[in-house]
Amino acid sequence: ARDIRLAVVAGDGIGTEVVEQGLLALDTALHGSGVTVSTTDFDLGARRYHATGETLTDTDLAAIRAHDAILLGAIGDPSVPSGVLERGLLLKLRFALDHYVNLRPSRLYPGVTSPLGNPGEIDFVVVREGTEGPYVGNGGAIRVGTPHEVANEVSVNTAFGVERVVRDAFARAAARPRKKLTLVHKHNVLVHAGHLWRRTVEAVNAEFPDVTVDYLHVDAATIFLVTNPARFDVIVTDNLFGDILTDLAAAITGGIGLAASANINPDRTAPSMFEPVHGSAPDIAGQGKADPTATVLSVALLLEHLGLPEAAARVEKAVADDIAERGTDRVRSTAEVGKDLAARIAG
Amino acid sequence: ARDIRLAVVAGDGIGTEVVEQGLLALDTALHGSGVTVSTTDFDLGARRYHATGETLTDTDLAAIRAHDAILLGAIGDPSVPSGVLERGLLLKLRFALDHYVNLRPSRLYPGVTSPLGNPGEIDFVVVREGTEGPYVGNGGAIRVGTPHEVANEVSVNTAFGVERVVRDAFARAAARPRKKLTLVHKHNVLVHAGHLWRRTVEAVNAEFPDVTVDYLHVDAATIFLVTNPARFDVIVTDNLFGDILTDLAAAITGGIGLAASANINPDRTAPSMFEPVHGSAPDIAGQGKADPTATVLSVALLLEHLGLPEAAARVEKAVADDIAERGTDRVRSTAEVGKDLAARIAG
Ligand SMILES: CC(C)[C@H](C(=O)O)[C@@H](O)C(=O)O
Ligand SMILES: CC(C)[C@H](C(=O)O)[C@@H](O)C(=O)O
Repeated sequence: ARDIRLAVVAGDGIGTEVVEQGLLALDTALHGSGVTVSTTDFDLGARRYHATGETLTDTDLAAIRAHDAILLGAIGDPSVPSGVLERGLLLKLRFALDHYVNLRPSRLYPGVTSPLGNPGEIDFVVVREGTEGPYVGNGGAIRVGTPHEVANEVSVNTAFGVERVVRDAFARAAARPRKKLTLVHKHNVLVHAGHLWRRTVEAVNAEFPDVTVDYLHVDAATIFLVTNPARFDVIVTDNLFGDILTDLAAAITGGIGLAASANINPDRTAPSMFEPVHGSAPDIAGQGKADPTATVLSVALLLEHLGLPEAAARVEKAVADDIAERGTDRVRSTAEVGKDLAARIAG
Repeated sequence: ARDIRLAVVAGDGIGTEVVEQGLLALDTALHGSGVTVSTTDFDLGARRYHATGETLTDTDLAAIRAHDAILLGAIGDPSVPSGVLERGLLLKLRFALDHYVNLRPSRLYPGVTSPLGNPGEIDFVVVREGTEGPYVGNGGAIRVGTPHEVANEVSVNTAFGVERVVRDAFARAAARPRKKLTLVHKHNVLVHAGHLWRRTVEAVNAEFPDVTVDYLHVDAATIFLVTNPARFDVIVTDNLFGDILTDLAAAITGGIGLAASANINPDRTAPSMFEPVHGSAPDIAGQGKADPTATVLSVALLLEHLGLPEAAARVEKAVADDIAERGTDRVRSTAEVGKDLAARIAG
């Protein structure tokens, strides 16, 4: 009998509410499979920060490392200075656990209303780099608060870091029917970083000769995401462009209430982390209004990553069927959606 | 009698084609007004670069400075290494002439089909910072082409630079009926730059107490641009976020064929520059297929900037009427659209 040790970081705002339904889906999907789940709750986020001043201690991190995977709800609260929890907790986890593949699938499920009038078939995945770029925290400011303040932010890109994520993206593209990879960057302006990305994609392409490659500047990519999203199969891009594009991708496929993500350490030197793309949504927190579907779909990515593709498929099918039959109307509460999905997963 | 000395940089690809129609619109709008236009053509772009290796010399720049305004078509060609013309010419003009307000209005004209199913009323303007941020060219790489390459890009933000563009954006917001300003940044990750922007907006707000301010992370802003663009009135943002958001804004309002922009030096220490948001579109260059509307609308911004609001209004009305009557179908050639617009401007 296999036991999955799952670290649970419910986090802030609607995090707790959606994670509860994610765990229900997980348990239900594994019921009778011989695989069990042991969860450890980590009290991290705004409450802990206010109580202790801590965001993520070395002890927390060591304890999380002893798990097979992490399920995360959402991080961030208006009561905490902007950036403290995001950088001190969420990004610290991604960086410390070397989550260099931030995987964000975008699919327009039948039954979902897209804000696009004529969306066509949307089914692509964004491979967002997770450990470099402008997210490294390599910035600083001088003369803060004076008329002579200078605030810099440095985007750091390494051959090592770009190559490994590009290779992962190629492998994903090669495994998909259309076998198409789009690099998104802005190499006409960010020439140093951009040319590293470009050269790397060209070089790795030799290992995946059946994958077709194209390139878009990030500004043009946003245009195609609303005029012809069907053109995308796999997108590979840097940390910041990936952040922006995946929110837009979520929007055109029915909203961040449906968008799942996986922060993957493909080398498995540390647990990978699964989380909805949406944030903590303080405006609707505690009201049972949050849609747990994105978290449930993140659980499907978790099952996939842990080598349980059948259970993963069952979870994803439950979501697809639920949406197809009932649409994404906001009449059901968080718990009701969770219960409906669990019932479908149970079959 | 007033004469406007206009520097014309048609540039690459469809640049020549659209600029020709822009000039026709300009001449027509000023016909009989007593204001004349003297143009100087500047041979800048891919052809010049291939012939001489030059992008923009000090002599070119000095000659351009002696003008009242610049009309620019498009810069960039696949035959030139990426970044050379963009940075050596287009961005050099913006930086050297201190175009710190990159103004990009977004309006959904009646008759235009938006890719959004239910766009609502779209009428906002993006004030994009034009002389700082990740566009400063302050990057570099070491060990290029080796497995140990590191490529950095630095975003530079100064109190001086942020404050002047924020003040301009507030003034524009104060002059509009809704009086609403949205700051777009990513201050939960880019904390140093982000907090400078945030503090500056808070401080300048005191000078414009009747302007309502809100804030969106750039990723969330892309969501609202497709789910509720009517929420925006004036957006102020950094150079790179502005680049991305304005292409998306163009897409939802009918495409970059319609999106105008102005690179403004509000202190008038150098000529301002007017250009369509679209690029040189090498795929359709020379075929008479390019829509000159964005350039004609940029001419309206030029007239406005030169203190000729009546002529500006006539040009904008011609575009609005043309679109309302004929839609944005691509049946007409570049020259036909230009002729139709000129006829309407002539009244
Ligand atoms: C909360 C924030 C730091 C985070 C990011 O920017 O990566 C979020 O927007 C995301 O996309 O997961
Ligand atoms: C061509 C390119 C350098 C330019 C930019 O990034 O500013 C363009 O995309 C724009 O928006 O005017």
